[in-house]
Amino acid sequence: MAAWGERLAGVRGVLLDISGVLYDGGEGGGAPIAGSVEALARLKRSQLKVRFCTNESQKSRGDLVGMLRRLGFDISEGEVTAPAPATCLILKERGLRPHLLIHDGVRSEFDQIDTSNPNCVVIADAGEGFSYQNMNKAFQVLMELENPVLLSLGKGRYYKETSGLMLDVGPYMKALEYACGIEAEVVGKPSPEFFKSALREMGLEAHQAIMIGDDIMGDVSGAQRCGMRALQVRTGKFRSGDTSGQQGPGPGKDSRRPPGPRRGSQPSCVCCDVQPSAVR
Amino acid sequence: MAAWGERLAGVRGVLLDISGVLYDGGEGGGAPIAGSVEALARLKRSQLKVRFCTNESQKSRGDLVGMLRRLGFDISEGEVTAPAPATCLILKERGLRPHLLIHDGVRSEFDQIDTSNPNCVVIADAGEGFSYQNMNKAFQVLMELENPVLLSLGKGRYYKETSGLMLDVGPYMKALEYACGIEAEVVGKPSPEFFKSALREMGLEAHQAIMIGDDIMGDVSGAQRCGMRALQVRTGKFRSGDTSGQQGPGPGKDSRRPPGPRRGSQPSCVCCDVQPSAVR
Repeated sequence: MAAWGERLAGVRGVLLDISGVLYDGGEGGGAPIAGSVEALARLKRSQLKVRFCTNESQKSRGDLVGMLRRLGFDISEGEVTAPAPATCLILKERGLRPHLLIHDGVRSEFDQIDTSNPNCVVIADAGEGFSYQNMNKAFQVLMELENPVLLSLGKGRYYKETSGLMLDVGPYMKALEYACGIEAEVVGKPSPEFFKSALREMGLEAHQAIMIGDDIMGDVSGAQRCGMRALQVRTGKFRSGDTSGQQGPGPGKDSRRPPGPRRGSQPSCVCCDVQPSAVR
Repeated sequence: MAAWGERLAGVRGVLLDISGVLYDGGEGGGAPIAGSVEALARLKRSQLKVRFCTNESQKSRGDLVGMLRRLGFDISEGEVTAPAPATCLILKERGLRPHLLIHDGVRSEFDQIDTSNPNCVVIADAGEGFSYQNMNKAFQVLMELENPVLLSLGKGRYYKETSGLMLDVGPYMKALEYACGIEAEVVGKPSPEFFKSALREMGLEAHQAIMIGDDIMGDVSGAQRCGMRALQVRTGKFRSGDTSGQQGPGPGKDSRRPPGPRRGSQPSCVCCDVQPSAVR
């Protein structure tokens, strides 16, 4: 196994996931993960470019950044690549008028979007908004369309809050896909377009950047498929069965990852179990 | 195309789906589909054995039969094959203690089942019970199990009520499958075991029976895979794009069936567009 200096050769920038890497959400705004405030401060003092690449879709970028700043993180709105603004660009480019199945906390991002007479559905991490009534309405809108379009802000399976694991948008995206016999378009990680837009904003090529996240699919595999390097931290949703070779997920494809005890907050390389002290 | 008499040669029994074939559910108990009360009465007067084979999982068999009798149908509880009683048998046989994500209307079917310290999840058409909180609880139970078992009472995509199309249990089953990286065990149509138990109760072999339903997958393909003949009615969830060759559904496999105008209440063979007057 190559030394860390060698494995990180040529890296000029770091993309950081937020939930499960910097903090765990939850009641009262959540809590920073031990050491993450200091790790980010150290990264910012280094020569490396830093950008935040998140699938957060319950909060607007402004609210997310405000909350993180209150927790002590050195972060500004312009440093964040998030799926809601990316979705608005797509809607405008394609003349799509969405029926929105989203959390009230992110609704302000869609203030400039025409939602009259919907010709598509946009689904995000709606949390408690994923009621049967709201899901059924989205389903009915899709079934009435000649060419149903479903945009999903990420396809994460779950995330970790301080109170435990929580269903993310992915399962609900799958539910609508199955109900309507369609395939959603994912805006956010692991979409290559999403990683590329983050790289563009950093002014870097894929081989010059490393993604750090807690999701073996959305963060690690997604970034690697774009030609980036990637590190999985052992915080957030990390489970001991995660392996870097794992693809997916999809019913019938994704092997069950055995539940295991959550490790501490020490990040390490998912490939080799080495603590990435070169980064942190 | 063979004549109807020839195509139905040797048929000694009829299995009837209920929702979308006999009636459409909805506010106030729903409404009979035009002609169905009379068609059932005629079948009962014939030499054919009649059994009802339903995936209804919001109501107990007793409540379902009571409601149908009030609508004018000649039906008794002992004539109905339904997934909740079949699930209870499986739970007892395998020593499974379920966490139940089900509608209150069917809860009485599980009165004799031990639900302490759950080692599996049972999901049925919970309707409004499919809240985010309830889905998340089922997800968390599964994620805590070493060998997670998910039993689903059917896997229908949707059904038709008088107010419109409604999400069935299938999409929520898919959501939990995706979230947990597991595959559910389906109890109900199109499970071969379920059709076989209905045939056993009729004392018939598969080649002696015909299934009549509105679901091209759950009813028609499912029965055909068991060696039975099958007819699709053009009521209930029938949509003009349904074809008998269609398999599925599953994300990425099930081609989008184009929405089309709902036809009238005339049942016909899905293969050849002939009105099955020999049956009705």
